[in-house]
Amino acid sequence: MNRPMNRQVLLTSRPEGIPQAYHFRIVETPVPVPGPGQVLVRNIWLSVEPAMRGWVNAVANYAEPVAIGAVMRSFAAGRVVVSNDPAWPVGTPVTGLFGWQDYVVVDGGAIQRRVDETDLPLSTALGVLGINGVTAHYGLLQLGQPKAGETVVVSTAAGAVGSCVGQIARLHGCRTVGITGGAAKRQLCLERFGFDAAVDYKAPDFTQRLAEACAGGVDVYYDNTAGAISDAVMTHLNVGARVVICGTASVATWDPPPQGPRVERHLLVKRARMQGFVIFDVPEYHATARADLAQWLRDGKLQYVEEVLDGIEHAPDAIAGLYRGDNLGKRLIRLARD
Amino acid sequence: MNRPMNRQVLLTSRPEGIPQAYHFRIVETPVPVPGPGQVLVRNIWLSVEPAMRGWVNAVANYAEPVAIGAVMRSFAAGRVVVSNDPAWPVGTPVTGLFGWQDYVVVDGGAIQRRVDETDLPLSTALGVLGINGVTAHYGLLQLGQPKAGETVVVSTAAGAVGSCVGQIARLHGCRTVGITGGAAKRQLCLERFGFDAAVDYKAPDFTQRLAEACAGGVDVYYDNTAGAISDAVMTHLNVGARVVICGTASVATWDPPPQGPRVERHLLVKRARMQGFVIFDVPEYHATARADLAQWLRDGKLQYVEEVLDGIEHAPDAIAGLYRGDNLGKRLIRLARD
Repeated sequence: MNRPMNRQVLLTSRPEGIPQAYHFRIVETPVPVPGPGQVLVRNIWLSVEPAMRGWVNAVANYAEPVAIGAVMRSFAAGRVVVSNDPAWPVGTPVTGLFGWQDYVVVDGGAIQRRVDETDLPLSTALGVLGINGVTAHYGLLQLGQPKAGETVVVSTAAGAVGSCVGQIARLHGCRTVGITGGAAKRQLCLERFGFDAAVDYKAPDFTQRLAEACAGGVDVYYDNTAGAISDAVMTHLNVGARVVICGTASVATWDPPPQGPRVERHLLVKRARMQGFVIFDVPEYHATARADLAQWLRDGKLQYVEEVLDGIEHAPDAIAGLYRGDNLGKRLIRLARD
Repeated sequence: MNRPMNRQVLLTSRPEGIPQAYHFRIVETPVPVPGPGQVLVRNIWLSVEPAMRGWVNAVANYAEPVAIGAVMRSFAAGRVVVSNDPAWPVGTPVTGLFGWQDYVVVDGGAIQRRVDETDLPLSTALGVLGINGVTAHYGLLQLGQPKAGETVVVSTAAGAVGSCVGQIARLHGCRTVGITGGAAKRQLCLERFGFDAAVDYKAPDFTQRLAEACAGGVDVYYDNTAGAISDAVMTHLNVGARVVICGTASVATWDPPPQGPRVERHLLVKRARMQGFVIFDVPEYHATARADLAQWLRDGKLQYVEEVLDGIEHAPDAIAGLYRGDNLGKRLIRLARD
């Protein structure tokens, strides 16, 4: 019998800015064997996140960069297939930072969680019930602190985080304005995610359209992009506005930092706040957020869109594609049928 | 008998950026007569604040701009000299937005407060016990939220607000770093205001000296300047840092906003916060802050420095002088001996 092989996506050189396909290489190695207290997980879904750009850059960030020659770090969802830990029986659906590979051996303690929402697709554990949904929930509700009747603007509004932000804001009684790129994503924002207005940042009349959509001013800006999109939003802040800094997708490189219009006067005159966060800082919050998100899903109040790339061979170009805006919805790589 | 005249400093044209002497004119008019329920106040001290720049600019701000031809808005401290309101007897020391003039008629309700700290010089009601001290207290303690052992950096550290910020931070057990311009102000920071370190932003090795003074990182940055000074501080933020936006003294004009390095990545990676405020939003806080400040003054724990310009003829150039950095300490104009 042929022993199954483990396909792994290795980081082979250090990107400056956005990692491209040529920064990775796919290798095949024997499936590893778990030792005492360890389990073997078969990955079914691999995640692709904008944040992975930061995980491979050498510049200061919130996590150690992935080493050259190492398996690319990523969230994954799969099942335990061999277990030497009675806490994690064979068949258990689990998530964790299992990396871009078919199989991984981990200690039980390295598993992020057992997926308890078995009535919902396993893939949701990486998106709307995973880091994206939790990020949207925490950033919007804890830092943005939206009140009913306020206007909430979010950039990358059709994406995994942005679409959740808009819907959670609407569930809290807010008027929602999504900023996204292209007609298809704009339509998705309006028809699927229920934004009150959606503005295409690639359109030549973007700033004019944004001004119309934000005629009453902006109370919360959930910023996933930075750059020119944010510059346009900042001019519409209301007094007491909260700007939540979640990501900087529109900025190709921060070394050196790009120039932009200074924000201090906006913050001063509007008594406004800008605040960055990293969702890994608040592990205790994840279960709380997930409980809300799962309930909204079951009640049909929360929509999500997934874009599935079939096969690990799609992985090397997958992050670059996110930054090109190729994806429509949460980008996932499927390695096997569950 | 010659009726006394009222010298008034009028705003005669709209400055772009920093108001200069030629934007004002001094006129003499008869001293006004209070009507029923009104009082006549004789101004003894006039205040000069960086914020007055914003009060005369036409661009969006937190207060209506002073009208062309009107008396320049300013805080002043004086005494009631004629009273038709029993709540404000003749002789009462008072403060308010009485304007750059010798005399003002106001309704009792337009008086900011009766000065109760009669054991302390009346001039302190405009500085360390006035808007400057209260601004320092609120911004530092409520927004900056410093904890003992943390490093607090403040720009315009020798000024009326900055010197208070540094001393309040030290009283709360913080390590304090002041940024100021020139050797005399640097010495004042170290010897009079007790900063642990003081850095001259005009020195050619400013960024190197700042890096040395902030070797352990910056937990709170109380920003009175924006601009290149802030750019240098932002690179030293610690995780969880708080940046308090109080003023933008180093930026000559915000129309259009000047360019600078984008801050989003600092805020994200360091989970940091930038927040602007306007002290007039929290009138209920002033008495609380003033009680602390007065007690620290009486206990000898809080130092202040005043720079007195004798005579209203100094007023027209007084704001421009602040922005040139001419002053050493709180700038006041004295109109009379108390």
